[in-house]
Amino acid sequence: MTIVLHELVGADVSRPFSPHCWKTAMSLAHKGLPFERNMVCFTKVPEVEGGVSKTVPVIRDGSQVVSDSFLIAAYLEETYPDKPSLFGGDGGQAMARFVESWSQSTLHPALNVVALREIHDMLAPEDQAYFHPSREARLGKTFEQVAERREAEIEGFSAKLTPLRVMLKSQPWIGGSSPRFADYIVFGALQWARVASKAKLLEEGDAVTDWFERCLDLHEGLGRSVPAAS
Amino acid sequence: MTIVLHELVGADVSRPFSPHCWKTAMSLAHKGLPFERNMVCFTKVPEVEGGVSKTVPVIRDGSQVVSDSFLIAAYLEETYPDKPSLFGGDGGQAMARFVESWSQSTLHPALNVVALREIHDMLAPEDQAYFHPSREARLGKTFEQVAERREAEIEGFSAKLTPLRVMLKSQPWIGGSSPRFADYIVFGALQWARVASKAKLLEEGDAVTDWFERCLDLHEGLGRSVPAAS
Repeated sequence: MTIVLHELVGADVSRPFSPHCWKTAMSLAHKGLPFERNMVCFTKVPEVEGGVSKTVPVIRDGSQVVSDSFLIAAYLEETYPDKPSLFGGDGGQAMARFVESWSQSTLHPALNVVALREIHDMLAPEDQAYFHPSREARLGKTFEQVAERREAEIEGFSAKLTPLRVMLKSQPWIGGSSPRFADYIVFGALQWARVASKAKLLEEGDAVTDWFERCLDLHEGLGRSVPAAS
Repeated sequence: MTIVLHELVGADVSRPFSPHCWKTAMSLAHKGLPFERNMVCFTKVPEVEGGVSKTVPVIRDGSQVVSDSFLIAAYLEETYPDKPSLFGGDGGQAMARFVESWSQSTLHPALNVVALREIHDMLAPEDQAYFHPSREARLGKTFEQVAERREAEIEGFSAKLTPLRVMLKSQPWIGGSSPRFADYIVFGALQWARVASKAKLLEEGDAVTDWFERCLDLHEGLGRSVPAAS
């Protein structure tokens, strides 16, 4: 049975941008499981699958409904053990949590600044009316105050990727010789930026850029199927 | 046969401080392998095992000589597969490279500043004569210039540990429910600081501090057996 992936979009349903939903799309493709993408806007998230979660991604797999990108990856790994592994063992599953923590505490705060206005502008009016005050409350700053930091965050972004850049001297993927969920975690963050923002964050010739391009090519170009913001 | 671990010391041979050597000491203890610690000062490193490596750790295991803390861990994992795993599978081995890259690109540069003078002062005179110019060349700064940044690095250090702090909300070890080599990578950095420097880098009540204390307790208190700098 085809798995349903509920994921976030703005006014244009062909441009899913959520980093966490991209992690799950890549996870499902990695497992070779057929899935159908159901696009949901911010204000409809509370209705997904009867309101099981405040956030997407949410998947329905037959009678199973699972939310949270990491828990979904763990569910897929456990439920489909004969399909290509997302973690490469218990150690890889645990260490993917470290990669997630790094990505969300280092990359996401920067991208929240860089792409804030652009994400807002992608949304339908009723979602903008939700997004604007909720994000200002979360960030503790007005959009205008956030905008003042944007250029500095763009300039400093490449340096935040240093751990990945250094690692790429040893191996082509965070997963080693092939990609794992940990790659999709970082890919999700950079794909979010690629789809939502026109900011140039990755430089030509950088090992991280080459890795990201390889990610975009995976699974028949799943990531590349949504064009970059322009 | 007892494995020999060659590791770095200063004038006091009871106070090994190298982060990389601590990773290997913990790896050997994790595997439950008997080992003997052979303490070597900076200027004697080129003589270790006939000069196989410019750096320690180096281990001799029967006829096998292996250098580099990560390669040693990989060697131990492959050679002693029935002993407790250092990686928890291929994914964990690969992702430990990410943890290593993060630790060495984020924590080490800060600790190199914080502990530079204190490490120098731990060394015997002939090692100081090597260490002083070689470190100034590597850092591109005089000791005095490095010292100017010391207070700021101490103050900023805790924030660099955020990814680990966030991860510890999900699980007690980087390795998940039990420690793996990835834990010893970060432990090595903080143990280096603990043994070499009087700087207070970890705060009471911080989840990272609690994790580090658990690391010090591991393997019959191997890490704690060397007292903190005082």
